[in-house]
Amino acid sequence: MSETTKKYTIAVIPGDGIGKEVTPWAQKALEKAAEGVAEFEYEHFDLGAERYLRDGAILPEEEEDRIKQTDAILLGAVGDPRIKAGILERGLLLKLRFDLDQYVNLRPSKLYRGVTSPLADPGDIDFVVVREGTEGLYCGAGGAVRRGTPNEVATEVSINTAYGVERVVRYAFRLAMKRKKHVTLVHKKNVLVNAGDMWQRIVDKVAEEYPEVSHDYLHIDATTIFMVSDPSRFDVILTDNLFGDIITDEAGAVVGGVGYSASGCINASDEYPSMFEPIHGSAPDIAGQNKANPTAAILSAAMLLHHLGFDDTAASIDAAVEADIEELGSTARSTDEVGRDILARM
Amino acid sequence: MSETTKKYTIAVIPGDGIGKEVTPWAQKALEKAAEGVAEFEYEHFDLGAERYLRDGAILPEEEEDRIKQTDAILLGAVGDPRIKAGILERGLLLKLRFDLDQYVNLRPSKLYRGVTSPLADPGDIDFVVVREGTEGLYCGAGGAVRRGTPNEVATEVSINTAYGVERVVRYAFRLAMKRKKHVTLVHKKNVLVNAGDMWQRIVDKVAEEYPEVSHDYLHIDATTIFMVSDPSRFDVILTDNLFGDIITDEAGAVVGGVGYSASGCINASDEYPSMFEPIHGSAPDIAGQNKANPTAAILSAAMLLHHLGFDDTAASIDAAVEADIEELGSTARSTDEVGRDILARM
Ligand SMILES: CC(C)[C@H](C(=O)O)[C@@H](O)C(=O)O
Ligand SMILES: CC(C)[C@H](C(=O)O)[C@@H](O)C(=O)O
Repeated sequence: MSETTKKYTIAVIPGDGIGKEVTPWAQKALEKAAEGVAEFEYEHFDLGAERYLRDGAILPEEEEDRIKQTDAILLGAVGDPRIKAGILERGLLLKLRFDLDQYVNLRPSKLYRGVTSPLADPGDIDFVVVREGTEGLYCGAGGAVRRGTPNEVATEVSINTAYGVERVVRYAFRLAMKRKKHVTLVHKKNVLVNAGDMWQRIVDKVAEEYPEVSHDYLHIDATTIFMVSDPSRFDVILTDNLFGDIITDEAGAVVGGVGYSASGCINASDEYPSMFEPIHGSAPDIAGQNKANPTAAILSAAMLLHHLGFDDTAASIDAAVEADIEELGSTARSTDEVGRDILARM
Repeated sequence: MSETTKKYTIAVIPGDGIGKEVTPWAQKALEKAAEGVAEFEYEHFDLGAERYLRDGAILPEEEEDRIKQTDAILLGAVGDPRIKAGILERGLLLKLRFDLDQYVNLRPSKLYRGVTSPLADPGDIDFVVVREGTEGLYCGAGGAVRRGTPNEVATEVSINTAYGVERVVRYAFRLAMKRKKHVTLVHKKNVLVNAGDMWQRIVDKVAEEYPEVSHDYLHIDATTIFMVSDPSRFDVILTDNLFGDIITDEAGAVVGGVGYSASGCINASDEYPSMFEPIHGSAPDIAGQNKANPTAAILSAAMLLHHLGFDDTAASIDAAVEADIEELGSTARSTDEVGRDILARM
């Protein structure tokens, strides 16, 4: 390694539940892949349920500032049944996505050879969901009056801006150019007429700059049907924050389980670090049992490398994962066994 | 039939696309089933795309008033690609659901013998989704500023009231008592904390009155996974307007296609007529080709009879449909052939 090699600092936030079991394997895969290629330093952050229960801290400003200084973030999972739903999700995970302006939530879905899909005839599934990450119903704009009374009214407000939509639409079309050149906008514009109409107009406008990319539109409800009946039809699915959350979990299921689905929360303008995480949650029911599949976390490490420009190094992880799944995907293995098996192939 | 037999007036709104092809079969099934049991009169309403294109009318007040006077409504489908998304959906379909206060959108999902599910191992699927029908993101509360400029902001507001939630929660628990006594609340309470928290509190409160009914909670994203990986786990799914829209389409897909899925938009207080419709849309791609499956529309007619208290008569339609599907479900047939076959069995 030359002396001028850039050093990269990676923030590691294992978080809760199985996040703590799979993230060490993602880091190990990163370390091994980076050997002789780049110098990576890891900064661990003790954030999540345990920390919150211990000292009430969710994401202290000083720690968030340090995270902002890193080059990328490896995250496990956030959420714990002992803590009221929303506190950690919004105070930690969504706060990072929003404060770090990670406006592209990139979620590839691929049916690996060796994985059994729950579908009888899944076809050749290989698409990417480009989910907007900083707007919509995730803004936290809502409230309640007369809480706890028979006259309570609770609202949730979806905020969508042309600025926020256009940048993610552009990302999707650029991505489609590198793939099968097809973008499917998913929304519910027959009901959410204000936001849906804006998304459609911006897609139509940006599409004019990409004459090679074809595009169509599907309602979110219809999309859940095609995801089961014909998932191989998709190339790039472009959608908002909530619909993206929903459709990527269904996509994870049809490619054999969210244990194989990685994601990147990308600040495509590189003002802040991007964050890489499996799309699965903290899975409290199997946490601490060395049962969780670390494949999605390891694939997230590959996405991180890819994002930092180390495409070949990222590809070495992807190849090890693919080979592992093809040979042993249907074998029951512990978290550590899968981790070791994948690393052994790298 | 005795002279005191009550006469029922049924509003028939075929609507758009395949709605016009399947609704006549629903009416024929109703007529045949009702013979000697009840006197039904049908009032046809020419509403939908054609009417709108002809004279600009969507749902004139005078016609809505007449609809309100009927005992039940048979609806086909609403939506036409020639008309901007939302105009007919909101002006006709949702307007009826809201003005007639049809707060329970009841959507049973059942895998019939003879139907091929896209799932390799579907199990014994038989659940009902109780979708709230008059609140949430469907209220039409939202807007846009600086439309068409780079500074556009578009909002959608989900309005949820304790009044509206509690009545549909009660309906779900009453229904569960007649079924397998399990209610699953589906929401996204880790993000939509105001509405989600209210739903959860009301469910917990009502559940105390139903000690025999167990209940649990799933996020909408996780639900889309279980819908594919383990749909037989569900009994009664209770959810809001938008999540109910999404999950029932996925459910329709896993039970072999929305061609078998009927629904009722129920005013459970009987102040206004309830409305029965297949959950599929107007399907412009196959409209006018005598291709659409009328089964869902015919099952909607059975739901209508059931709602009016003619349980045995409703059962006769259900039985004919079940027998038809079991014997001929996998045979390619035209709309009219399926309709004739089902009627022949009644
Ligand atoms: C944990 C939760 C807030 C999160 C989301 O809704 O975005 C998760 O479901 C995901 O998809 O990353
Ligand atoms: C047509 C549309 C407005 C409607 C809805 O979203 O409710 C449909 O999808 C349905 O499920 O009945």
